[in-house]
Amino acid sequence: MSAPAPKSIPYDKIRAVEWEHGRLKLIDQRILPGKFEYLYLDHLPECAKAITDMAVRGAPAIGITAAYAIVLAARDRYKENPKGWQKEIQPDLDLLAKARPTAVNLRWAVEHMRGIINAGITGDPVPRLLAEAQRIHAEDIAANRRMGEMGAALIEKGSGVLTHCNTGALATGGYGTALGVVRAGFAAGKIKSVFANETRPWLQGARLTAWELVQEGIPATLIADSAASYLMKQGKVAWVIVGADRIAANGDTANKIGTYMMAVAARHHEVKFMVVAPTSSVDMNTPDGAVIPIETRAEAEVLNVGGTRTAPEGAQAWNPAFDITPAELIDAIVTEKGVVMNPTREKLSAMMKK
Amino acid sequence: MSAPAPKSIPYDKIRAVEWEHGRLKLIDQRILPGKFEYLYLDHLPECAKAITDMAVRGAPAIGITAAYAIVLAARDRYKENPKGWQKEIQPDLDLLAKARPTAVNLRWAVEHMRGIINAGITGDPVPRLLAEAQRIHAEDIAANRRMGEMGAALIEKGSGVLTHCNTGALATGGYGTALGVVRAGFAAGKIKSVFANETRPWLQGARLTAWELVQEGIPATLIADSAASYLMKQGKVAWVIVGADRIAANGDTANKIGTYMMAVAARHHEVKFMVVAPTSSVDMNTPDGAVIPIETRAEAEVLNVGGTRTAPEGAQAWNPAFDITPAELIDAIVTEKGVVMNPTREKLSAMMKK
Repeated sequence: MSAPAPKSIPYDKIRAVEWEHGRLKLIDQRILPGKFEYLYLDHLPECAKAITDMAVRGAPAIGITAAYAIVLAARDRYKENPKGWQKEIQPDLDLLAKARPTAVNLRWAVEHMRGIINAGITGDPVPRLLAEAQRIHAEDIAANRRMGEMGAALIEKGSGVLTHCNTGALATGGYGTALGVVRAGFAAGKIKSVFANETRPWLQGARLTAWELVQEGIPATLIADSAASYLMKQGKVAWVIVGADRIAANGDTANKIGTYMMAVAARHHEVKFMVVAPTSSVDMNTPDGAVIPIETRAEAEVLNVGGTRTAPEGAQAWNPAFDITPAELIDAIVTEKGVVMNPTREKLSAMMKK
Repeated sequence: MSAPAPKSIPYDKIRAVEWEHGRLKLIDQRILPGKFEYLYLDHLPECAKAITDMAVRGAPAIGITAAYAIVLAARDRYKENPKGWQKEIQPDLDLLAKARPTAVNLRWAVEHMRGIINAGITGDPVPRLLAEAQRIHAEDIAANRRMGEMGAALIEKGSGVLTHCNTGALATGGYGTALGVVRAGFAAGKIKSVFANETRPWLQGARLTAWELVQEGIPATLIADSAASYLMKQGKVAWVIVGADRIAANGDTANKIGTYMMAVAARHHEVKFMVVAPTSSVDMNTPDGAVIPIETRAEAEVLNVGGTRTAPEGAQAWNPAFDITPAELIDAIVTEKGVVMNPTREKLSAMMKK
């Protein structure tokens, strides 16, 4: 395992992405929870496909997968052409960067690794690039643990929380972002009850978050996404805790479709709303949410459920994968560099400069 | 067909319940949209089972089915015992009334028909009871058409609308309540685009509403329930139009889970919110939404989709079938007796006395 969990951290058993015996090993998240299988990948195009096909998903996990994919590509290109591999790997990097459009971590990881490649590596590039990929991976886990502690500190003892999509170990290098706060908050006795939206159309909540929480022994209750308002109305939720695929410079946040709906409902019920994401998800070059590209995925994801057609032939669907939650609906953004309450451009900028 | 659609009414092709050649004919809604099959029923116990098993669903459609079922029972009991059938039919009526616990229209239809039976019928009771069942059926369709016209009149030309669950021909005698407004509004050119929530966990929107609209040739776009806020944010929806399972005296409305979430999102985006239901759904004996009992259904409905397990073993779920939308989030209640804007106890009471 590339980044084993120390025994002292509770509720941290799962790793979605691992470097093992010179190969990239991914939990195939498309078939969870019915089947638990690993994919073993040896070449970059396979990794790009695994990202596009959502065998691995979650912005930080995608970034880490990309970093390891570049190690595999460098190994292939160096073997083919030890003198010219730095040039020949460039199209691989471009292919990888396009595997999914919304998550900024993917582009960040590709450009970070490209920078190291372009700065010049003498001889076999694998040790240098692998060390960097492993550093990115380990730092992600460490960042998640820091965010978990800081996010949990915002929560009053005995609270109920609601989370959306999967932001856990499966979505990251390990431990999770929003689900890291849930882990830390549960371990610290801050969180009494955990509710998870099932998160249609991909059912990341039902399939992945519920699976992680069952694995870890954290009791949780799954709900249909549209039941969230009624849950809040009953006073059962103090915080909605979500991740982010991209945070713009003003705090506007792109995240899984439905996040914005949860933020609107939270504000209506005076429930607090927390976004948890590493600074690699903060894009200071994106001025606000209006300019974040939103991936529209296949209609089939709405017209079918788990491969079974549910809608009639002839029906049409609209399937945006993400939405934008404006900064004014967000009470706290938690990154590994600190907590920003009531986010603004100025506060985020100051936090990023730390 | 017991209540054929006049040629002059467009978009009115579907009848879930029909009296045909002395039999009751139901569209089997359990297998839509994958299969379209009729059930032909000759005896009351079969009809009670069809209601319990949800081959027919939707409060008005259940009431109409019950009225026809009583015609079948009267035929059987009169044939067996022309002198004593009025007494012998009583246990049949009791069985039917218990087929679904919450549908108020079912009890209303049974007690209405019982009243006619108990008042005394000379000779063969079938003509008298069949005429009454057909009158109930025809009046439901007429009420839906009136509500369709009145609801559509509230909508500005060229609007987009969003609906939740199934409130169409399949849920009623024909034409539908909220979906009747969609039909009338589309026919009148008021409605330009129709969006339908898939409506987890039962997927009535994906399975039934989308099917009806495809059948009628009304173009519609299905969305995941949680995408509704993002859709509203983009200005694509002028009205959310829903049905009701019960409207309290102050206008608070019980309807399919998720309705309240749509109302909260609509208010946030200054989108109008319309409830469409016959006065038989208005319960002036229920002072407000707080005292409406909310049915909690099996966890399995959330943990599975269409018979396929989606959540991991060991996961728990919360599955309220309905929620309460407070009157202050409702812009218009449309009944066959008229439209109540910004509903209050006083306005509803005046409308009911018409």
